[in-house]
Parts: sequence; structure tokens; C-alpha cells
Amino acid sequence: MSLIVQKYGGSSLADAESIKRVAKRIVETRKAGNEVVVVVSAMGDTTDELLELANQVTPIATGRELDMLLTAGERISMALLAMSIKSMGQEARSYTGSQAGLSTDAKHGSARIVDVAPIRVRAALDAGAIAIVAGFQGFNRGTGDITTLGRGGSDTTAVALAAALNADVCEIYTDVDGIFTADPRVVPAARKIDRITSEEMLELAAAGAKVLYIRAVEYARRHGVTLHVRSSFNNNEGTLVVNPKEGEAVEEPIIAGVAADLNEAKITVVGVPDVPGKAAQIFTIVASTDANIDMIVQNVSTAATGLADISFTLPKADGAKVLKALEDNKGTAGFASLQYDDQIGKLALVGAGMRTNAGVSAKLFTALFEAGINIEMISTSEIRISVVTRADTINEAVRVVHKAFDLDADELAQVHGGTGR
Amino acid sequence: MSLIVQKYGGSSLADAESIKRVAKRIVETRKAGNEVVVVVSAMGDTTDELLELANQVTPIATGRELDMLLTAGERISMALLAMSIKSMGQEARSYTGSQAGLSTDAKHGSARIVDVAPIRVRAALDAGAIAIVAGFQGFNRGTGDITTLGRGGSDTTAVALAAALNADVCEIYTDVDGIFTADPRVVPAARKIDRITSEEMLELAAAGAKVLYIRAVEYARRHGVTLHVRSSFNNNEGTLVVNPKEGEAVEEPIIAGVAADLNEAKITVVGVPDVPGKAAQIFTIVASTDANIDMIVQNVSTAATGLADISFTLPKADGAKVLKALEDNKGTAGFASLQYDDQIGKLALVGAGMRTNAGVSAKLFTALFEAGINIEMISTSEIRISVVTRADTINEAVRVVHKAFDLDADELAQVHGGTGR
Repeated sequence: MSLIVQKYGGSSLADAESIKRVAKRIVETRKAGNEVVVVVSAMGDTTDELLELANQVTPIATGRELDMLLTAGERISMALLAMSIKSMGQEARSYTGSQAGLSTDAKHGSARIVDVAPIRVRAALDAGAIAIVAGFQGFNRGTGDITTLGRGGSDTTAVALAAALNADVCEIYTDVDGIFTADPRVVPAARKIDRITSEEMLELAAAGAKVLYIRAVEYARRHGVTLHVRSSFNNNEGTLVVNPKEGEAVEEPIIAGVAADLNEAKITVVGVPDVPGKAAQIFTIVASTDANIDMIVQNVSTAATGLADISFTLPKADGAKVLKALEDNKGTAGFASLQYDDQIGKLALVGAGMRTNAGVSAKLFTALFEAGINIEMISTSEIRISVVTRADTINEAVRVVHKAFDLDADELAQVHGGTGR
Repeated sequence: MSLIVQKYGGSSLADAESIKRVAKRIVETRKAGNEVVVVVSAMGDTTDELLELANQVTPIATGRELDMLLTAGERISMALLAMSIKSMGQEARSYTGSQAGLSTDAKHGSARIVDVAPIRVRAALDAGAIAIVAGFQGFNRGTGDITTLGRGGSDTTAVALAAALNADVCEIYTDVDGIFTADPRVVPAARKIDRITSEEMLELAAAGAKVLYIRAVEYARRHGVTLHVRSSFNNNEGTLVVNPKEGEAVEEPIIAGVAADLNEAKITVVGVPDVPGKAAQIFTIVASTDANIDMIVQNVSTAATGLADISFTLPKADGAKVLKALEDNKGTAGFASLQYDDQIGKLALVGAGMRTNAGVSAKLFTALFEAGINIEMISTSEIRISVVTRADTINEAVRVVHKAFDLDADELAQVHGGTGR
């Protein structure tokens, strides 16, 4: 008997019919002799509708009350799913985040899990029932208040429960067939990846692949949880995200996939005095805004001026606050001016195999050069190479790189619905 | 400084604009120097929409999961209301039933309150905040599960909190101006009652007046909570429901009001052997169905047959199950046949003054006789007289009785929206 945690997102629970379809799949998994824990998101657009209501009431919804509001969404979907399963003759019980023992810190809107004690979930399984758990939510033991985990929170809930219950696998159901070597909307020849390491998955997620959230993958990696990303619309095998042990022989291709991200902008701090500590001072100012900065490049200063330029990328959403923080501290930081560019695209090539294969960078740069695509920034990790190009060349860049590394499939993938989400 | 509990129903919280209007009223009450606890129902039609969703998923929604589903409604309204109040510069905190310490028995769908420990609500007041509490819901300490209190549950929550917090008054906001001497849609000359005893209110509510639920009035009476039923659409004084102490001199009119109920049906058990214990046997069968029976009349048996007829009224919704239970036990109960009549109307005249005023029954019967309305059943309590008539004569009956007891106002009441709810 296996213990399987399944997570269904809002698009798999859009209406009563979808809920019944999902219930049927869950009942089948149970009848196949498995213990089943199901983590749900809110139905379809419920979260957006609740946010819209909040917006109509006040322009500044505060954390505690907003969390109270949004957690109503999962409450609805989990109760309906439990009812549906019961109507199929299988016992099911739904639990809120707090009933499922997900305690978090008190940071409303983006709480971190501090402890998972799924005592009632375990008891439900022992009683032969299917346990349904509200994703995205927890509670703070100190204040007794309800919290939410932020974007991708339901994935994180599923992985955290899988770890705490020592589940055999955590299945993440979505509306695509798994993780692809590139976004099939951009690269029709993209192939589904059967198996990927959590390390590679982390790099792909960080580089803009949106099927899984970084936080959930990190949690899975740290706790050795195997993820299975698959479609709730068919029974195909999806993508396994595995955690090979140190030294374990894993046969894998050099390159796992290519990801692109158009949500980043570039800030260039112009005319920074090339003296020790200046870069640190600038990034201390940036860090004070809580913005997530990614690639950083410092131009070499010319001997004539003694001034350097520092460029970095960050989510467009953080652009304004970082610019303001830098401008406010222009005097002490001592730079000349700021440039903001939100017309960039970021391409990342990810693969654990590039550790032991020389020439990956050269092949990447050559492919882009031959396609006439200019590279503006470069950054590398052990298993990733990222480059920044103009936004309007990014799709072409993904296609030529995908082809250059022999990732193209013989047959074209079937693209349906919101592929890439 | 007074402590005021305010309860707002779904029609007062129909949309974002209504929520802001209610928030404004609450803030004014707070600014006038009062401590304020607010109990909310779900917004507008939310509960019906959730029930409809449940219905689409399964024909038989079970208690535990249905309660989990429905309690999402108050969660949404309370969070939005708290946000709205905060946006007006006043501190507000929302609490679920379990956070507010409303513990109940485990009877899902119609749980009874067993203990009220509003520790967090009291702490919020002490910190100068307005406390918003979800009505209709509680939790069972034994199972840890969420429960709901059934119809009128939010009124009960408000009264229970008012009692536990020793509030000065519990204001029940609705879409009418208060309790009327009759339903203004039926009797345009109906007058708003300024002051009524909880005893009279109980009889009126039991007789079909729908502004307050019996259960909340009972709770208020038992705990000495003063209710103030008023409109959330204006600042008029509404109706005070008071609990005069034993022997306290209360100047009140003989008759408080006239109520009518068209939701009852009559079952007649024909040909019951007139031997001791037969009536008890029949009502034991009826009681086994949990139906709420109201008026009971037994015809005198004729010496010739030795058989009697027993009639009783009950909610139409309970008709089928009671008929079935009786039919199933026809053999042992030994009656001849059953008659079912759902075309009846029930009129009740209520007033504490009738205790000490003779002739009330005579005046009632005369008024109906003069209007040519036939009385089919009669039952009386110390402060109420109820009669059953044909359904299609009930409105006329209410009007003539209202007039006969000098309840008609000089000016006609303004009837707006759902008067009588």
C-alpha cells in the first residue's frame, strides 16, 4: 500500500463537473489500494473574485483580514470535493490548514511553514478515509490567526504534507502533461521530460518555467519528496522530479530544458565610483526593499574616469520601489544616474549534465550569434547558463537554442489550454 | 461606555457598497464611545449559491462537509467588513465562530451552543478594536470540527455573545423598521411596536412573525439580554424586546400583535378507538419523526362508534414523513384512515395583557364570525390565541382582527423591500 499525496489546482476544480471528475480519479486511486491525501486550491477564479471584492471595499486590504478572506476559497473547494467523494461511496474528510496541523510564522500573505503535524489527517487515513486538505493556508500558533503561504502555496502544502506523512509520491495535477524542454507555445517541437532532478527543476522554475513553484521544489528537495507533475485531464505519465542520492548513477541528457522569462527588468546604476565597498552599499539599499534581484553584472571601469556601471535584473513589479530607494540614497551612494529597461528577456539553459560537458556555453553563444541575437548579460551556475536579450527576440532565441541542443522532438507536442502554466 | 452587540443579516451585506454603509454605521457607534461587537451573516445570496454548488456535486450533502462549506460565507463577509472598517481608520479584527469561543454540540447543521468563551473578542475590545464575529457557526470541542447553528443562527450567535460579554443591548439589524403589529404587506395599517416583552415576542415568532428567530429570543429571555430590532437602512428607533422582572410594572397594551402562518398543514387521524393510551401511542409515532407539531384537537367520540378523530398541525415540510410514519404503524395504532390538508392558515393573537383581560377570545371569534370566516381549530396559551382557517381567508382574517383590537395606525406604514422578514 502506497501513500499518495495529490494536489489539484484551481483549473482542475473549476466547477461542479470538474470536481466530480477529480473525485472519480481520487476514488480510483483509493480503490487501487493506496492511502490518499488530497490538497486543493480554490475553485477556478474564486481567489480573483475575492480579491476583486476586497478591492471594492478598500484600496488597502491588510494581511490578517485578507488571509481570512482568501482562505474561504479552499474551504469551499475542499468541502465540495469531500461531498462528491462521499457520494461515490468512499469516506472522505476535509481539513483546513490549521486542522491539518500546518503551523506557520505570522507573516500574513507569505507565511513560512514552521511545523507540520498532520495528526487528524493521519487518523483519517488510519480510519480508511480519504483526507482532503485546504492548500495555501496555515495558522500561527502564537496569535491563533489564519495565514496564507503566498503564490504557489498549495504546491507547498502538498509537498509539506507528503514530507510529514512520509508519502511515496506527491502528485501535482495541472492542465499540462508535465514539464517540457521548453514552453510548447513558443517551441512546438518541445518534448515532455520524463524525469528531471529537483536541482534542474529548481533552475528551470527560477528561470521562468511556471508549472511548479520554486518554493515547493525546494521543500521537496530538502525533504527528499518525489514529485510527479501530471495532467488531471488524462492518465498519461507526467514528469518525475527526483532527488538522486550523492553518487547515484543517473543516466540523463546533458540539457534538461530551456526556459524564458519576460517578467524581468534591468536597472543600471551609472557612474559608480570604483572604490571598495561601493557595490555593497548599493546592494544594501536594494536589499532593504525586499526585491528579489537576479543577475548582476559590473562593467570594468575605465582608468580615465574611475567610474563603473552596475546592472542587475529584478521582477518588473519590484522596479519602481527599487528605483525610488536608490534615488533616495543617491547622495550617499555617490552614483551618477539610473537607467531602467523593461524590454528585456531572459533565457536559461538548464542541465545537470553540463557540469561534466565542456563547450555548452560556446554552443549556446554560437547558436544565438548565428541567429543574429545579441546577448546583453550573462550569468552562470553549475547547472545553468542564463543570458539576457531584447524582449522581442526571446522566443526566437528559445527556439534556436532548443534546436541547437537537439531537444526538438520528432513529433510536435499537442498544445492544449494554458500550456506552460 | 456601553458595550453594544450588532448583528447584520445578509440583506444588509449584499455587496461592497452595502458593506461600506454598514461599516460606516459601526464606526459611528464606536466613535460615540461604545465598545462594539459585530456579528455577520453571509453576504446576500452566498449561502444559497453554496447550497446550489453542493447540490450540483451530490444529492446528499452530509453534515460535516456541508457545515465546512457554508461557513465560508461568513468568513468572506466578516473579512470584508473588517477591511472596510480599517480603511475608515478604526481598528477591527474578525473572528470565526471557533476563534470567538462558540463551542457547540456535534449536531451538524443544527448545533446547540454549549459554551461561549469570547476571550479573543474581549481582548480585541480591550485593545480598542471593533470585533467582527462570524455568525451561524461554532465548533465542537470533542471532534475539533466546524458546526453550524441552523436557521437564524446568526441571531443566536449575537445573543449568545451579548450574554457572555454582558452587553448593554443586542441590536438586530434587518431590512424592516422593527416588529409590527401585523405583516404590513397584509395589513397596511400595521403599526411598529416600540416595546414588547420577550414572552410576547416568542409567541409572535412561533406564530409566524419572521423578523426574529424563536431560538434567539429564547436565549435572550433566558439570559436577560435586551434586543433592539431595527433597520440598517435608517437611524429610526426600532422595537425593544425586553425582559421585565417579576412584578415589574410594565405599561403595555393588551394585544401586542397578530401573526399569520401559511406554512402549516393539518393531518387528521380518523377513527381512533377512544380507549386510554391511543393518543399517546399516535403522538409517540409522530415524535419519532422529529416533526414539530403545533396545535392538537381531538373530537369527542360518538357513543355509537366509540371512535374519535385527532387533528394536529405541523410544518408542510414535515408532512410526508409524518404521514409515512403513521401509515407504517397503522396496524398497531389501530386508526381507520389519514387525511392531509395543506390549504390551512394559522392566525395568532398575542399579548401579555390578555392574562388579565377577559373577553379577548370572544372579541376575536366575533370579529372572524362577522367577516364570515370559519374557524377550524382553536388553541390557546396564557398570552396567545391561535385559530386555523382556510388558507385563502387568512389575510382577511388578519386584517379584521387587527382592526377589531384597535391596532390600526392612523397613518399607513411605509412598506419597503422584504417587510415581514
